[in-house]
Amino acid sequence: MLETISTTRAHGGTQGVYRHTSTATGTPMEFSVFVPDHEEGARLPVVFYLSGLTCTQANVTEKGEFRRACSELGLIFVAPDTSPRGEGVPDDAEGAYDFGLGAGFYVNATEAPFDKHYRMRDYIEEELPALIAAEFPADMQRQSIMGHSMGGHGALTIALRNPERFKAVSAFAPIVAPIDVPWGQKALAGYLGEDRAAWREYDACALVTDGARVPDILIDQGTDDNFLHDQLHPHLFEEACAQAGQPFTLRMQEGYDHSYYFISTFMADHLEWHAVRLG
Amino acid sequence: MLETISTTRAHGGTQGVYRHTSTATGTPMEFSVFVPDHEEGARLPVVFYLSGLTCTQANVTEKGEFRRACSELGLIFVAPDTSPRGEGVPDDAEGAYDFGLGAGFYVNATEAPFDKHYRMRDYIEEELPALIAAEFPADMQRQSIMGHSMGGHGALTIALRNPERFKAVSAFAPIVAPIDVPWGQKALAGYLGEDRAAWREYDACALVTDGARVPDILIDQGTDDNFLHDQLHPHLFEEACAQAGQPFTLRMQEGYDHSYYFISTFMADHLEWHAVRLG
Repeated sequence: MLETISTTRAHGGTQGVYRHTSTATGTPMEFSVFVPDHEEGARLPVVFYLSGLTCTQANVTEKGEFRRACSELGLIFVAPDTSPRGEGVPDDAEGAYDFGLGAGFYVNATEAPFDKHYRMRDYIEEELPALIAAEFPADMQRQSIMGHSMGGHGALTIALRNPERFKAVSAFAPIVAPIDVPWGQKALAGYLGEDRAAWREYDACALVTDGARVPDILIDQGTDDNFLHDQLHPHLFEEACAQAGQPFTLRMQEGYDHSYYFISTFMADHLEWHAVRLG
Repeated sequence: MLETISTTRAHGGTQGVYRHTSTATGTPMEFSVFVPDHEEGARLPVVFYLSGLTCTQANVTEKGEFRRACSELGLIFVAPDTSPRGEGVPDDAEGAYDFGLGAGFYVNATEAPFDKHYRMRDYIEEELPALIAAEFPADMQRQSIMGHSMGGHGALTIALRNPERFKAVSAFAPIVAPIDVPWGQKALAGYLGEDRAAWREYDACALVTDGARVPDILIDQGTDDNFLHDQLHPHLFEEACAQAGQPFTLRMQEGYDHSYYFISTFMADHLEWHAVRLG
């Protein structure tokens, strides 16, 4: 059952915020959907946007500057939350921002106590698209996915594992090699345990190295991003793609940081790139 | 002395947030400025944007979706705060949102205790433009002004009192007749006292009726705005302009509300309208 929290007219379409009880996470989940005006009975392609650490659906919904382009291009834009939330959902032991609430890393956790609710992979791969297909005028033959930072990691790994589902994938400043960086090591150990073999299906570099392929990938990365040299390392993905023959475009954006000022600047570009591939 | 709180690259320009000690208000004041990339030595036209009740500079800076259009059109965008703030600044007696902090109404208060700090008219009319002229690559021969709700009231009244300064004025869902509506009556009585003759220079309808003129005015108003029928009454301004021969365009926007979803939708339109008049 889908509960409507709000619908607001914007940029020639409807920006909605919704809540439902997720069977994947066992919690209420909120997400936002923008639907451009369209002819009755029409079905529009769908772009999923996965957010980064600390975010909810609200960050991109308020600051992402996607509606004008979505309206012009006829794209539905879906923005889920980044983790389960609510009573009984375990958080980071010290309440850190990079694990637990707001930091689900788009995995199915196998370690207690996180394995009960932290099933964001199932949520994004199975439950949310089924709900979108049932409740919105979406053409599920034309889906694509993008994300920012931790959400870029989510978009890349989900697309690489499900190449038949997505016609396009792109990312803003993604975590491309979680196995090799502090954010990823903490999260994957916490959610999946210490056996690193289990981490590889949640690592874009490892997936490409292990044979996963999509038609092409676009990444924008700001050169003044505080996390560039410790957490992001887009050159690792560039190398993995080059070695594997995976088509890949990396655009280093001079002077841009990790914030929504950066994302909003290149959002329309990405949506145009998606629209071409969504047909 | 201008203190830089932050500068961030965005949409091919620089989004800055600044603080200074205002002589007009006797308090620290924060404002944001977006400066598009430009040739060295170039001076760009300036758009002042005045925000509504409860806002700071941050609302439009984060949600206004003005940067792309400003960059394309070569416009500097300045967003001041809506009131003085800080220790010793008196607020509404009951802490209501519609008077005191976040609700300066762009007047010079004459009633104690507000007369000491609530001098937003002097701040916007005198001090801020001098600071912008001194510190930014601004062509002060090409200024315009816009605003939302209480800030639309500010933009209209300031432009009507200073027709030589501004080449364009527009507003989103402005308070056009504060003398006649609850928000305005509370604010003007509180800041100016009960003599309604003193209110007329802060009422767009009264100013036009009393002879003030600008070349033309653009207003967008959502039909689903919760405040339309109690506080905004754009038809009062339409009637005043028609009677006075003041050129005026009112666009009723079907289904839009009072929020930044509405503002961001029509922001680029307004900036294009300003750019034509700024030359």
